[in-house]
Amino acid sequence: MDARDCFKVLREIKDVSFATVDRHGHPQVRIIDIMLAEGEKLYFLTARGKDFYQELTEHAQIAVCAMTKDYEMIRLNGDIIKMKEQKNWIDKIFEYNPVMNDVYPGDSRYVLEPFCIDKGTVEYFNLGCTPIHRESFPFGSARQEKKGFCITDACIGCGKCTENCPQKCICSGEPYRIQQENCLHCGLCMETCPAGAVEKKGR
Amino acid sequence: MDARDCFKVLREIKDVSFATVDRHGHPQVRIIDIMLAEGEKLYFLTARGKDFYQELTEHAQIAVCAMTKDYEMIRLNGDIIKMKEQKNWIDKIFEYNPVMNDVYPGDSRYVLEPFCIDKGTVEYFNLGCTPIHRESFPFGSARQEKKGFCITDACIGCGKCTENCPQKCICSGEPYRIQQENCLHCGLCMETCPAGAVEKKGR
Repeated sequence: MDARDCFKVLREIKDVSFATVDRHGHPQVRIIDIMLAEGEKLYFLTARGKDFYQELTEHAQIAVCAMTKDYEMIRLNGDIIKMKEQKNWIDKIFEYNPVMNDVYPGDSRYVLEPFCIDKGTVEYFNLGCTPIHRESFPFGSARQEKKGFCITDACIGCGKCTENCPQKCICSGEPYRIQQENCLHCGLCMETCPAGAVEKKGR
Repeated sequence: MDARDCFKVLREIKDVSFATVDRHGHPQVRIIDIMLAEGEKLYFLTARGKDFYQELTEHAQIAVCAMTKDYEMIRLNGDIIKMKEQKNWIDKIFEYNPVMNDVYPGDSRYVLEPFCIDKGTVEYFNLGCTPIHRESFPFGSARQEKKGFCITDACIGCGKCTENCPQKCICSGEPYRIQQENCLHCGLCMETCPAGAVEKKGR
């Protein structure tokens, strides 16, 4: 599994959730089509009259998520850019997505503008297996972000974290170690550690 | 169709997208379960260790969306509150959603905290019919927000808007009138009106 595989899944699901921040600083979310997935880039479009368009032009960060029928979730955080040579891109997108003609017939398609997500991080999270499984991949020129929890050298080896972990994903050792790919990020290990040895990453 | 009907659809879909704003002011989105829909209230939960929990406690606005198999979209913007008598609510939610025991077995469920969306606006948007159909409903003590476009008395009756509208949802008259329930909010009428008679609402 890598970023491109995640992008293929997003394109297959096609109707995915796009979150933005509006001019009041509030979250907004809509179902938007992934129109193309080429290499490590995802393409979508929207009409100039929509609030979504306004939010994209005022704030170039976006978050995307979707779930397969098998409870596999894909989550992406990335930066967007507006495409140049807009008409060519719109024609290409309509060629790959002919159903768009039902909504925007004829030349009305040119009220749409194409955008690309060109760098960020994508996370794969499978809640349909035991223990759960997660992995994340930077794409474009983005760097990997650290998330979740880790156990520091302050660990006294009491095993309380393993005992309480709902996914049983903490191995004994010096210090104990969280199997990051199976962690829910629930924080129960941090709450129950008597030595304060568990830290939240990336805060 | 009203807000309660939309809530029933969200509960049926169950795994829906929740968008928040993080401490950097960036959008975040995840698939979260609607655990209960009672009257005009929606209930969900999350673990104290998660970034989602942090975002909810720092910023009480949320946006939710989901799509049915028939391309009906439900979109919600609302305020959240954290429930009191947390343990009772968690036990009730686990009773209605027994599959939660697979992820949070035994007492690990109490690392979760229940939240409620108690006021806001919910929009129903059907892209699977021609013309498209949309309606929105305030719930709780929220007021209706005005969105989309309207044609003012500056209209000269030339008919360019009707001609260009991809959904053919503008009726002739003095002034011409947009059938709001069929409007895509694409803005092509505003762009093509030679009299500048079309205005965007709520900006």
